Amino acid sequence: MGKYKGYLIDLDGTMYRGEEKIDAASRFVKQLEKKDLPYLFVTNNSSRTPKEVAEKLVSMDIPATEEHVFTTSMATAQFIKQTYGKVNVYMIGERGLEDALVKQGLNLTDKEIEAVVMGIDRQINYEKLAVACLAVRNGAAFLSTNGDVAIPTERGLMPGNGSLTSVVHVSTGVTPKFIGKPESVIVDQALAVLGTERHETLMVGDNYQTDIMAGINATMDTLIVHTGVTSVEQLAEEKIQPTYAIHTLDEWDWEI
Amino acid sequence: MGKYKGYLIDLDGTMYRGEEKIDAASRFVKQLEKKDLPYLFVTNNSSRTPKEVAEKLVSMDIPATEEHVFTTSMATAQFIKQTYGKVNVYMIGERGLEDALVKQGLNLTDKEIEAVVMGIDRQINYEKLAVACLAVRNGAAFLSTNGDVAIPTERGLMPGNGSLTSVVHVSTGVTPKFIGKPESVIVDQALAVLGTERHETLMVGDNYQTDIMAGINATMDTLIVHTGVTSVEQLAEEKIQPTYAIHTLDEWDWEI
Repeated sequence: MGKYKGYLIDLDGTMYRGEEKIDAASRFVKQLEKKDLPYLFVTNNSSRTPKEVAEKLVSMDIPATEEHVFTTSMATAQFIKQTYGKVNVYMIGERGLEDALVKQGLNLTDKEIEAVVMGIDRQINYEKLAVACLAVRNGAAFLSTNGDVAIPTERGLMPGNGSLTSVVHVSTGVTPKFIGKPESVIVDQALAVLGTERHETLMVGDNYQTDIMAGINATMDTLIVHTGVTSVEQLAEEKIQPTYAIHTLDEWDWEI
Repeated sequence: MGKYKGYLIDLDGTMYRGEEKIDAASRFVKQLEKKDLPYLFVTNNSSRTPKEVAEKLVSMDIPATEEHVFTTSMATAQFIKQTYGKVNVYMIGERGLEDALVKQGLNLTDKEIEAVVMGIDRQINYEKLAVACLAVRNGAAFLSTNGDVAIPTERGLMPGNGSLTSVVHVSTGVTPKFIGKPESVIVDQALAVLGTERHETLMVGDNYQTDIMAGINATMDTLIVHTGVTSVEQLAEEKIQPTYAIHTLDEWDWEI
């Protein structure tokens, strides 16, 4: 029996690559199930609901239910409610973020705005950005689901939420509170949901800058798998190394 | 007879405030006309054509023709043609920018993009930003008409082109070439149009960070007028002072 009693697991690049299956990922999660080890998928993707994420995982032969999914939208909504209460929120974002904010009982509005929250929004326009800028200048809290500057797609690297958020940041001079990886906010919340101790939980991901840094910032052990963003060569240049590094999840030694 | 043989003059905050007339501005330009001193309005507003700008000035009783107007769109289009030739340009912007690019014989397209240029665009959307990001990552030159982060309106400070440009800058990691004030590019071009010598030409404006810094960067004499953005108190904090500072253009001493 290994030392880790719980697993926080990244999605894109770790469980799949866009629409492409990663077979070792399916085997890895099936092992977790078999060993009765709790796990939670932790994603910076704010656009999808937990249900949609679970459906995608199941379609890729990865055991998952809604309860196995923790999105940065959920973390952001929870953070807002805990920090500010049931305030008036102006949202720029997609269904996943809207769903999470509503579930926390927050009031979505463009009037008397007390908090502005930005997530990826492929229907973004000037008016939305203007309302956000005016509210932030007027003293509203300013939050962003994640700082990812680019999203990998078949067309190439598209603008990520971090770059959209920069419009309001640059225009107002107010720095947003980011919630997603590599911030520890999302990890701390995910640990509370998972219910395992921090020192007995492993953070698993492919992206050094987000997944591994999130684990490091949250003082957790980390496992990088080179099936996505960060190459072996890129990792070698990082000063702080993850606890473990493997080429595919099949290499994970369950005895550790 | 004063030492200045030509005047470069800012618009918003100097010649008018939004839709509000500044009477001293009208008297100032009429003096220029009377004294037969050449002048050119130099603006970071990329959205309007010179004709539209001249019409607005005339409606405010300020003598102006199309030939008196030099926009950052004109400067940007000229810069692109001189630097890269008649390349394929992907534009995010409004009519003033489109008009200027077409007048320089540049080919506006979203195919085989050789240069991306951004100006204020109140019809901006995710797809436009995506095309710009993909092209810049693919090696296209990246230009921006101006770095103004906010635009004063009746509703408050709205997002300016500098903040929209930051999406592509932050997402790609490529720093754009800015053309408008405070860069010297636009001033150098304006001087060439005006035809007077640099040391005999005065830069007049209300905004220390853009107008006055543009003059300083272009090693010109500068005159700040406190009818717009920069207050007397704010100016006092600046290390490099403008050559002259006055409260209204009526205070300008034509004997200088």
